[in-house]
Amino acid sequence: MSVTAPAGFEAAGVARGLKSSGGLDLALVVNRGPSNAAAAVFTSNRCKANPVLWSEKVIEDGRVAAVILNSGGANCYTGAFGFQTTHATAEAVAEALSVSAGDVVVCSTGLIGTGDQLFRDRVVGGVPVVAEALSSDGGTDAALAIMTTDTRSKEAVFEGAGYSIGGMAKGAGMLAPGLATMLVVITTDADLPAESLDSALRAATRVTFDRVDSDGCMSTNDTVTLLASGASGTVPDLADFTAGLTAVCHDLALLLQGDAEGASHDITITTTNAASEDEAVTVSRAVSRSNLFKAAIFGNDPNWGRVLAAVGTTDAEFDPYNIDVTINGVKICRAGEPFEDRDLIDLAPRAVSVLIDLHVGAETASIYTNDLTHDYVHENSAYAS
Amino acid sequence: MSVTAPAGFEAAGVARGLKSSGGLDLALVVNRGPSNAAAAVFTSNRCKANPVLWSEKVIEDGRVAAVILNSGGANCYTGAFGFQTTHATAEAVAEALSVSAGDVVVCSTGLIGTGDQLFRDRVVGGVPVVAEALSSDGGTDAALAIMTTDTRSKEAVFEGAGYSIGGMAKGAGMLAPGLATMLVVITTDADLPAESLDSALRAATRVTFDRVDSDGCMSTNDTVTLLASGASGTVPDLADFTAGLTAVCHDLALLLQGDAEGASHDITITTTNAASEDEAVTVSRAVSRSNLFKAAIFGNDPNWGRVLAAVGTTDAEFDPYNIDVTINGVKICRAGEPFEDRDLIDLAPRAVSVLIDLHVGAETASIYTNDLTHDYVHENSAYAS
Repeated sequence: MSVTAPAGFEAAGVARGLKSSGGLDLALVVNRGPSNAAAAVFTSNRCKANPVLWSEKVIEDGRVAAVILNSGGANCYTGAFGFQTTHATAEAVAEALSVSAGDVVVCSTGLIGTGDQLFRDRVVGGVPVVAEALSSDGGTDAALAIMTTDTRSKEAVFEGAGYSIGGMAKGAGMLAPGLATMLVVITTDADLPAESLDSALRAATRVTFDRVDSDGCMSTNDTVTLLASGASGTVPDLADFTAGLTAVCHDLALLLQGDAEGASHDITITTTNAASEDEAVTVSRAVSRSNLFKAAIFGNDPNWGRVLAAVGTTDAEFDPYNIDVTINGVKICRAGEPFEDRDLIDLAPRAVSVLIDLHVGAETASIYTNDLTHDYVHENSAYAS
Repeated sequence: MSVTAPAGFEAAGVARGLKSSGGLDLALVVNRGPSNAAAAVFTSNRCKANPVLWSEKVIEDGRVAAVILNSGGANCYTGAFGFQTTHATAEAVAEALSVSAGDVVVCSTGLIGTGDQLFRDRVVGGVPVVAEALSSDGGTDAALAIMTTDTRSKEAVFEGAGYSIGGMAKGAGMLAPGLATMLVVITTDADLPAESLDSALRAATRVTFDRVDSDGCMSTNDTVTLLASGASGTVPDLADFTAGLTAVCHDLALLLQGDAEGASHDITITTTNAASEDEAVTVSRAVSRSNLFKAAIFGNDPNWGRVLAAVGTTDAEFDPYNIDVTINGVKICRAGEPFEDRDLIDLAPRAVSVLIDLHVGAETASIYTNDLTHDYVHENSAYAS
């Protein structure tokens, strides 16, 4: 169900030959109202894809009638022709749904540089087809159609008091958002104005998608769009809504982590007793970007030295000789010296927790990452060729 | 020859059982004078090994009589006991050579957390043995004794006008220096005071070792020591000496890149027409740290989209739609669009050049990196277990 779980939404996914597999590759999510309030966050990568450049304009007035999404091509660095493709796609959606093209968010995902005439024909020509397929239980097909190297579709639903929130996401590589990440569409039948949706979405993504850092690589196409139909008639308390939205984003973020390209471990790196939340994020992220640490976890090696070597590259406040490192509940390093026996640590399970105690403050934050595996190298060395 | 090429130096390497292979693992380089002027640069990692903490004090007066180096254990995060081991090692060298312990630089390399009683016995007990083996052609043995995962020893020599410079280096992993990198000893028989050596060394390392970024991971033990005996009697022009020293550092840096763990390509990433040299370094380094780009090169895939996605994460001055990317001489992307045919690019050779033209200024800088391979993952997942 996902994006069609809340009242007021229809969705569909169809196959247009964009994916060599022949699978579903064009998705449409429509907000039937009565409200068309919306918010969105985009990649902070300065090299942005054409659909991002388009959609940043669309969201300015806080109104979105529909989101059209394709896999099989990022339409990034495809020049003026590529931007015209995005524009033509939005116009086709506008015509099929009798809405304004300026209310249509466009999302694309796939290889950078892909966006030729054939791509345009398949996407723009597919709009009437996917519009024809719209239904109130089309969320699952839409979630399938946005997959690229994902091995499974990603959906989440939250039931609030008198309203619901549904979401779908795709993403398996280039998972290191600067603001938002990957392609995500979240729907709700709550009745909230665009400004409230915007503040809720920014609060939710800051502590969820922004803290997934699978491989340190930031995409050019990341877009998270939140659509509110108001069809439930419920005007929720904004704090409650934000908590529910955060729960949906958290579920989707962990689904992304759990399906990261080639990964064999999901690693939660938590820095605690930091001087500030930002410093806790900085320290956790530095460890999440250490290829040596990530390769060690792949090898089931609780290599705490590589944790400390990464911590030491940051400017966070700490005493280098008063840091504890706990891996899967075993305090392997205390105050900068070996402590409990490394053989007590079982790294066979997929889930791994690393706890870094800086002993300087009271703030905590986690980054969600993965190990560095042979399958990651294989998948990303063979992707485009 | 390397460090024993210049007059006034002796060196040796012996096997003390620190390496499981039984190979040479303890090295000593001695400056017989008449001058003992020296300079050194160390890792900027805030989590520093005990030998670094010791040697930072030793270099303060600009005098070094000897450098003792061991492989088979980093003596990092080994607590007060580990620092006492470093101190005892320096004292043993002082006794064997009749010099002051305060003039003995100590360097260790190997696994973080290794530095127990057995380690101490083997290192400290080995000092008389390696001192006994000192000879004026011992440079090669010393270079062999500092190897860890290196597949070959690394030496370089520069012949100046009336003086020479010799150097040895080790390093194959954790190759992303903050100031200096890895273990390097450079000798010269030029007669220069410590302040001149310091300025020359900082100038040389800034554009050589500081620009090797094989895997983005910064070591806790990096030390580069420059020893000047004055035995040639030649007082070179400082600019000429700095140029020669830079040549030696450049040769050693490329030897490090060429032997990086598991690598199958040596990639030079050059950013040109940047607004400043710092920005050129920032852009080149961002690309060098993209696992997706590095995996693509392993797969012989000239994936320029991953280059631009990495460039876009930086705050350097550029127009995202006026960047050219040239790989091995083929301009695959011009002004943000596909240009020459990707099939023209031959990525079979080990050497790969990536040229990023920002079209905003006149500054250029290169970063030397490697691809991300199955062998890198294998070597770093199996290292400690």
